[in-house]
Amino acid sequence: MSPVELPAVRARLDVDERRRQLVELGTRLFSSRTYDDVSIDEVARNAGISKGLLYHYFPTKRDFYVATVREAARQLMDRTKAPEQMDSLERLRTGLDAFLSYVAEHSVAYQGLLQSGIGVDAEVAGIIDEVRQRFCARLIEGLEVHGDLAKLALRGWVGFVEAASLGWVASRDRVPSEAVRDMLMQVALKIVKSYST
Amino acid sequence: MSPVELPAVRARLDVDERRRQLVELGTRLFSSRTYDDVSIDEVARNAGISKGLLYHYFPTKRDFYVATVREAARQLMDRTKAPEQMDSLERLRTGLDAFLSYVAEHSVAYQGLLQSGIGVDAEVAGIIDEVRQRFCARLIEGLEVHGDLAKLALRGWVGFVEAASLGWVASRDRVPSEAVRDMLMQVALKIVKSYST
Repeated sequence: MSPVELPAVRARLDVDERRRQLVELGTRLFSSRTYDDVSIDEVARNAGISKGLLYHYFPTKRDFYVATVREAARQLMDRTKAPEQMDSLERLRTGLDAFLSYVAEHSVAYQGLLQSGIGVDAEVAGIIDEVRQRFCARLIEGLEVHGDLAKLALRGWVGFVEAASLGWVASRDRVPSEAVRDMLMQVALKIVKSYST
Repeated sequence: MSPVELPAVRARLDVDERRRQLVELGTRLFSSRTYDDVSIDEVARNAGISKGLLYHYFPTKRDFYVATVREAARQLMDRTKAPEQMDSLERLRTGLDAFLSYVAEHSVAYQGLLQSGIGVDAEVAGIIDEVRQRFCARLIEGLEVHGDLAKLALRGWVGFVEAASLGWVASRDRVPSEAVRDMLMQVALKIVKSYST
């Protein structure tokens, strides 16, 4: 890289950095409040910029929201990544522990993302599906699972994890996360046992 | 009832009957196409009434959609009801078969309902949660399941059923519904075995 930064390059970096900061602010705001409860006015106020400038970065509230969903997906995949040297059971356990702690921290956003609204947003649905697939592929890495029915069972298991986690968020003063994690593991192992070749 | 129907009563019946017909038309339209793909113009044209009259029955497209979701929920509960005299295993099997055939028939609506959009609609989310609870309560009737963790496991199982069914809709030329039903039963029985007292 040149020691003298060109103004255009610096401007570009500034834009990227500002976008990143705004998305980070958004993930925090949407973590504890729903889409409808967070206004663009509030985002701009919190960011210390004008609404006009915010719209320069994100043309609509939806665009801003989708960017925060994308960032949340990235964070989730990052946090649930278990060290390479672990064996598959340890990776599954570590991944589920990290998943449950992420869900507990971002419970409102997580509920909002999975609860039903009116209509579907293809981009949001696509991000969620991609996370499901990658999360699932990573957790069963090293376990032998083959065939259409086994794939459906794994897809089912991801639904199990999501639904049980949502239920747990509402009752986590009574149920320790370790108990939920063990239950999720047991169901996963049962599936792997039934469908591994 | 009086043999001579009062005009006001007849008018009320007409309104109810017309609403019912419109909702039935809506469940058919949304069965194979998404919320965004179905226009109010098209609904009115199909029903042979003016848009103005349609708005008289349902002030907004959202209201119309919510009414069809409510009707779909009623149909689903109705169709998946197994005869009283069956034992619990047979009821579970019959209920799941009926559920899978319902999902196959209404696959687009079902996918649209469970895929994510922007924000949450409290009424739609409420209808779905009620169906989940009633469906689950009915399927495990007669099986002994107690405690917080068991409840989470059952909630997880409903998520498993939904996710596996959604996956199956996309691959049902390769996987017979009986195989999926057996898998769903096995997971349910595993849970009941682990948590029954």
